[in-house]
Amino acid sequence: MNNLKGKDLTSIEGLDAADARAIFDTAKLMEPFAFRQKLTRVLEGAVLANLFFEPSTRTRISFGTAFNRLGGEVRDTSGTETTSITKGESLYDTARVVGGYADVITVRHPKTGAAKEVADAVDVPVINGGDGVGEHPTQALLDVYTIEARLGKPNGKTIAIVGDLKFARVIHSFARLLSKMYQGINFKFIAPNGLQMPENVRESIRTSGSQHTMTDHDSINAISDADVIYITRTQEERFADPAEYERYKGKLRIDKKTLDTLGKPGVMLLHPMPRDSREGSNELDHDLDGDPRLAMFNQTDNGIPVRMAIFALVLDVADQIEKTARPVNWHVPKKP
Amino acid sequence: MNNLKGKDLTSIEGLDAADARAIFDTAKLMEPFAFRQKLTRVLEGAVLANLFFEPSTRTRISFGTAFNRLGGEVRDTSGTETTSITKGESLYDTARVVGGYADVITVRHPKTGAAKEVADAVDVPVINGGDGVGEHPTQALLDVYTIEARLGKPNGKTIAIVGDLKFARVIHSFARLLSKMYQGINFKFIAPNGLQMPENVRESIRTSGSQHTMTDHDSINAISDADVIYITRTQEERFADPAEYERYKGKLRIDKKTLDTLGKPGVMLLHPMPRDSREGSNELDHDLDGDPRLAMFNQTDNGIPVRMAIFALVLDVADQIEKTARPVNWHVPKKP
Amino acid sequence: MNNLKGKDLTSIEGLDAADARAIFDTAKLMEPFAFRQKLTRVLEGAVLANLFFEPSTRTRISFGTAFNRLGGEVRDTSGTETTSITKGESLYDTARVVGGYADVITVRHPKTGAAKEVADAVDVPVINGGDGVGEHPTQALLDVYTIEARLGKPNGKTIAIVGDLKFARVIHSFARLLSKMYQGINFKFIAPNGLQMPENVRESIRTSGSQHTMTDHDSINAISDADVIYITRTQEERFADPAEYERYKGKLRIDKKTLDTLGKPGVMLLHPMPRDSREGSNELDHDLDGDPRLAMFNQTDNGIPVRMAIFALVLDVADQIEKTARPVNWHVPKKP
Repeated sequence: MNNLKGKDLTSIEGLDAADARAIFDTAKLMEPFAFRQKLTRVLEGAVLANLFFEPSTRTRISFGTAFNRLGGEVRDTSGTETTSITKGESLYDTARVVGGYADVITVRHPKTGAAKEVADAVDVPVINGGDGVGEHPTQALLDVYTIEARLGKPNGKTIAIVGDLKFARVIHSFARLLSKMYQGINFKFIAPNGLQMPENVRESIRTSGSQHTMTDHDSINAISDADVIYITRTQEERFADPAEYERYKGKLRIDKKTLDTLGKPGVMLLHPMPRDSREGSNELDHDLDGDPRLAMFNQTDNGIPVRMAIFALVLDVADQIEKTARPVNWHVPKKP
Repeated sequence: MNNLKGKDLTSIEGLDAADARAIFDTAKLMEPFAFRQKLTRVLEGAVLANLFFEPSTRTRISFGTAFNRLGGEVRDTSGTETTSITKGESLYDTARVVGGYADVITVRHPKTGAAKEVADAVDVPVINGGDGVGEHPTQALLDVYTIEARLGKPNGKTIAIVGDLKFARVIHSFARLLSKMYQGINFKFIAPNGLQMPENVRESIRTSGSQHTMTDHDSINAISDADVIYITRTQEERFADPAEYERYKGKLRIDKKTLDTLGKPGVMLLHPMPRDSREGSNELDHDLDGDPRLAMFNQTDNGIPVRMAIFALVLDVADQIEKTARPVNWHVPKKP
Repeated sequence: MNNLKGKDLTSIEGLDAADARAIFDTAKLMEPFAFRQKLTRVLEGAVLANLFFEPSTRTRISFGTAFNRLGGEVRDTSGTETTSITKGESLYDTARVVGGYADVITVRHPKTGAAKEVADAVDVPVINGGDGVGEHPTQALLDVYTIEARLGKPNGKTIAIVGDLKFARVIHSFARLLSKMYQGINFKFIAPNGLQMPENVRESIRTSGSQHTMTDHDSINAISDADVIYITRTQEERFADPAEYERYKGKLRIDKKTLDTLGKPGVMLLHPMPRDSREGSNELDHDLDGDPRLAMFNQTDNGIPVRMAIFALVLDVADQIEKTARPVNWHVPKKP
């Protein structure tokens, strides 16, 4: 029984733990197809519309590739067209039109709540690819999937989240999903003043039986008992007071030395990308590239099986995939 | 016998009634494929080039989806690239190059006559997706197809066309096609001063045996005996005199109350989209969304079977489709 | 034995003559598929990522079409997105992410050496689609393929190259490839002062046993003993001194009269496109369109089989193509 058949995925808030588990189970089955040990054409003839109202190369290509790996076709909007939107067209109109073309729609939009608006306008399933400061549920699913793939179910684990926790939609979806799926997570929120985790997210964490502490950015050493560290970017323009930005600058940067000094052995380090690789950015240093503790590229790699699973479930073809499997007949590099 | 095999579709002017009828007959056969009751892969291996020199998300995605539903692949240009055009390349050069890559080309271009220029440069069929203030033949075909699907052949019917009739290329193609396919259409052209239907279109209407009257925008009540109302947007920048725009403002707007008060019961309301949904725009109100008289989304939905039919005919695969049909194996929502 | 299996193609410098020969032999096999006498779906299920950091409609669509003609799917970035790059993401990060999605990557980038950087970051094969003033190896391959298709192996032939030879990356790749594949080429480099062929390219020509002379732009009559003329654009902004540009203006333009007067009978004229078709541009006149000496559109047409060959070899499916061939079932125009 597939409970996600025909459903939208617009938020983690609206997804229950059993649905998330079904997505993970299906993503596991998708891995050989995502990583080209096998191929399927189960969605041959189906069309995905990538409805991107702001540019996001990574997310757009990840959705598109996932759909292609199931055999379907992709029609793209890249967020750079002077679309009808700018001529005064409502989101309802655009959505309803595309809903008459495609079998499933992904939406990326600068406005919080846009994915729900699109979902309300159309009959076909709608997947939220990030809306304003709202949610980014597929990113949260692939983040948590990546944790489980390495650590198993993180019940009772300590998870530190570092950076701008106020505006980072992916962090909200991530924290909600963890507290929904597992027991007794111990969250540590490390953020500059004024950029801490919003109360509504913390409330849903408390309700679910997990706990959290909040720490100022001066206490990056709060990562020292974490099993998982999730660091995200903090943009200067988010600070009301430039002096505050200056005060905080450089204090939330993680590099190899920080991790060696403060981190538990085998700590897992996540980042939602893009990371700012410029000199002086407050994030993640390139000296951790290739370090086994860094799971950032496992996250993006896992985007494919997780998004394949979501498409396969909402279009209800998951149980046809194994029996349509064929061998891959082209050269695929061995994983190092 | 397929008279459209290998042909271009650059204008309604160059299409005869029998060809339009062949497109409609084929579009009817395409409906189960367009609306995913069945699937075909008849054009597997074929490539469409969407050559868009100005952005038009809706039209570009409609052409692309139609081609995908036949099994073909789509290569897109979205009109936002600083293409070679801006480095001084001629349209001839661009067209001739792409003509060596693709099996069929669609063109959208700000210059009137561009589609014909592209067609002259290449051997493969070229479909006009709108050129300047010239023509937009596929839009006209899907508009008239939508009328026929609801009302049957509109011989002798009264068709009111409202808005900027001078610059709206789709309106020219629409009026030409109706007068070419049917007998005794009674056109009512309702437009602001200076934006009335051009003489060359009116001449071809007269020649075909249809008739028309022209009414100023003060007489929106001229819609009262119409069986079909086609309303289109009127852009402020089209007026030579801003005072004239002010005088006309708000007088060509159709909302539920106007339609209830002035319209015949069961009148059919069309709009080519995009509609301007901003406050104070002169067009079509959102309070008609979901009203059965509004056929605007039937138009966009029908874009898929009509464009599939055009591709199937110019590439001469229409008679192979039924015998290659397969069942659709993914979840498709029932029409409400 | 396929020596290119799993390999990158980032430069002509790194390609040996035997590999180039393998590409040409395979391209010959691809021609019936590229020109739709037959079709193959050998790469069904595979994904190409077109990673374009600057716009190039022609090259992007050529790569995409070539991959489609092998049965594979294409995910595009068109170079107009405000991609993560502009938010400070490193090329390494972007490349590594996309390397987890696709089976093969093409790169176009304004920075010399970018293709190599991408190749170093990923496991899958990377094809350079032009990087800065570096290389454009697939263009050079299709240029030389076009020469061989018309003239046979050009051993001992005289090849004049006209225009900006300093900054034109394609010219560097072209000259290197010719001197690598053939014996005793006699190059004539005709360029404005300050825009002559760089010493490192000339050194590799000398080493390979070919020879060259350099001529100023006043001596366009140096084309008179050429078997092949390759003309490229010269952009005003390349001149340090505007007076120098004025002095040279109009002297490197080839039109029908120049070719009739100065050229050998049957001389072959190549151009990498785009050509500047504006009044007063210094290049190739439209009065040569349709002239059999002009091979410019043979070059672009040949882009498809040559790029198909490269994909087929690096993904190691070339030997499966003939046995998967099917007849084309749609209308294909006869070559005139």
